[in-house]
Parts: sequence; C-alpha cells; structure tokens
Amino acid sequence: MSVPGDPARVGVLISGRGSNLQALLDAAAAYRLGGRVAVVVSNVAEAAGLERARRAGVPAIVQDHRGRSREEHDLSLLAHLQAHGVDLVCLAGYMRLLSPVLIRAYPGRVLNVHPSLLPAFPGLDAQRQAWEHGVKVSGATVHLVDEGLDTGPIVLQEAVPVLADDTPQALAARILEAEHRIYPQAVRLVLSGRLVRQGRRLLEETAP
Amino acid sequence: MSVPGDPARVGVLISGRGSNLQALLDAAAAYRLGGRVAVVVSNVAEAAGLERARRAGVPAIVQDHRGRSREEHDLSLLAHLQAHGVDLVCLAGYMRLLSPVLIRAYPGRVLNVHPSLLPAFPGLDAQRQAWEHGVKVSGATVHLVDEGLDTGPIVLQEAVPVLADDTPQALAARILEAEHRIYPQAVRLVLSGRLVRQGRRLLEETAP
Repeated sequence: MSVPGDPARVGVLISGRGSNLQALLDAAAAYRLGGRVAVVVSNVAEAAGLERARRAGVPAIVQDHRGRSREEHDLSLLAHLQAHGVDLVCLAGYMRLLSPVLIRAYPGRVLNVHPSLLPAFPGLDAQRQAWEHGVKVSGATVHLVDEGLDTGPIVLQEAVPVLADDTPQALAARILEAEHRIYPQAVRLVLSGRLVRQGRRLLEETAP
Repeated sequence: MSVPGDPARVGVLISGRGSNLQALLDAAAAYRLGGRVAVVVSNVAEAAGLERARRAGVPAIVQDHRGRSREEHDLSLLAHLQAHGVDLVCLAGYMRLLSPVLIRAYPGRVLNVHPSLLPAFPGLDAQRQAWEHGVKVSGATVHLVDEGLDTGPIVLQEAVPVLADDTPQALAARILEAEHRIYPQAVRLVLSGRLVRQGRRLLEETAP
C-alpha cells in the first residue's frame, strides 16, 4: 500500500484496446485521477492497451489465463498488483470474471465500468441489448465489483440518449465517451475516501 | 372513432390525484396534445382527478371495480371509452392491471407513464426501488401497454438525476415533473401516426 504523501496507486486490468485505460492515464497525467496508474496487467498478449501503458511509462505485464483455474490466474494477478503496491483495482475491458480471491483482497476497492445504466442490461453486449429493447435513454455506469455479474454498488452513472437513426455501434461509441468521462471521476471519488455506504447506496460525504 | 378533421379523442383512466391527467388537459388546451381529452374514468369515487376533468369541461365518470371480475370491470370501461369515441387510452395513475379485453380493443393504443427508466424498476414504488438500489440516474418512461407488467414498447423516456441528499419523496417529485413533460409529447407522437415499430423499437418516421 502507498505511504502517506505518496499518490495512491491504481492497477488496471485489460484484455483489449484499453480506451478506458487511456482515459485513466490521461486523467493521471493531468492530476485529475487522485492517484497514478502503477501497473497494467493484460490476460491477452496482443492487447493494444499494453502499448498505451508503455508509452505512459507504466509497467505492462502479460499474465495469460489459459490452462489455469480462475483462482490460480487471479492469485498471479494479485501477486502483480501487490508487488506494485496497488491500492485500487480498475477493470477496463477486462473480459474475465474475477474470483473471490481477488475481490476479497481488495474489499470495496475493485471498480468496473459498464456500458449501460445498471441494473438495466447487465452482461455482454449491453449496448446492443439496450438498442434492441428500444430504450430512449441508456448510459454508462462505474460500480464496485462484487461477486455477482455487474451487481455491485454504483459509484457514478451518466445518461446517454438513444437516437432514432442509431445503430448499436453508433450508440456504443456515444456511451464510450461517457465511460471515458465518468471512470476517472469515479476513481478520484473512491480514492478521496469520502464515499460512505448506506445499504446499497454510495454517497459522497460533504464537508462538515 | 373520430372522423377526418375532428381532433383525435383521448380517454384517461385514473385512480387518484390525476396530476398526469392535468398535464394532458393543459397540453390539449394549449393545442400541444394533437387531440383532446374526451372522457376521464376513475375506479375510485374520491379521486381528485375527477374534479380536474370537470373543471376542464370533460365528462368524468366513476366506474367502481369492487365486487366484479377484472374482465367485467374492463368491459364497462370499454363501453364508456367507446361511447365517447376514444381513439387512444392513457393510464394516469390508474392502479389496476388491465385485462386483455381492453388491451386488445385498442391495439398499440393504450399508453402508460412509469416513474423509472424501464426496464429498470418495473412495478410498484419504482422511485423508492431506484433510490434503494443506489442508482445515480433514474427517470420516467411512457410506454405502450401490453399484457405484461410495465413491459410494453417504449415511446419516450427522460433521465432524471438522483442527488446525494435525495429522499425517495424528493426523487419522486423530480421524476413527476419529467412525467408531466413527456406524457403529452408521447401522446402527440402516437396520435401523429408517424411511429413505426421494428421489433420492440418504436421509431419516429422522418419526412421522406
């Protein structure tokens, strides 16, 4: 864990292009993240996000999940995160479910971004689910990761309109812009230590 | 049914205060509804909405549901609606499920307004459900009524923020303002005849 005066350390897990990773790196570079990205781990060797990390001077690690149990894989991830003193874990297009071993090592300290207004449209291909359902408003959600699928307490959400001539792809692109806005804000909010939990509700403590 | 040149006729079903009925009456008076409210029917004799109808010069009928089957009651409602030449039925705080006999008599012509961004939080007390779930965005939905509970195709939605110091009551009041905005718009859209359906999606046809 970080020492007082040190910026908080964020570990980012990716599987692909890492556009949300880039949003976190950009926010850190502009001192808008409330911490710095200390390590990026990908389960896919070809993930373009690894190069984004390297360009930003952040250690980029490949940890292949194939041929190992979920727990074995997650214990390796955990070792990398702890070796880099990570305080907060961010999933950014990480395409595997986490096992309890990782979630319990970072209680209330694993974040995910999801391309819908949860609890609507959890799971894969949320943008297409929303489009096919015919909603007029969808959006993006940053939430704490618990042991369910996209069920954890919500940190931030942003609404995004669905337009009459949208394709699922056009809608996904508009939602992605919202993800890039709210993910760094949510990280900053969690790192601030000012979020309090009441039931499922996460509320920002206001100054006394 | 209305004859050419005649404004379309809207029938409104209520059970209570009828604030959404008032929004429809106000829109009609301002020629923003695309039709006029031809009759209001309440299943509750004390519903304050009945007086709103009378003040607007609209026939206000009480049809008590007690002691009768759902189908018997809905056949009576249907008789009132047809006697007033109703083209489109709007539920406005009508607290009973409709039977197929009424829905099938007005295919694609029964609307409801619901205080959440459906498909999230269907059913009763949607504002409190959303508040307890800890969402940061909720809203209002106008949808076609089918034989499920709040499952029909969506005509319009408006997002409403959930604020840190909200109570369920404060959130409900903010959502109600959105309901009053989108319900008349949705009625106008349906009456325009320009909505086309693709799967579950309702789209506004643009001019050729």
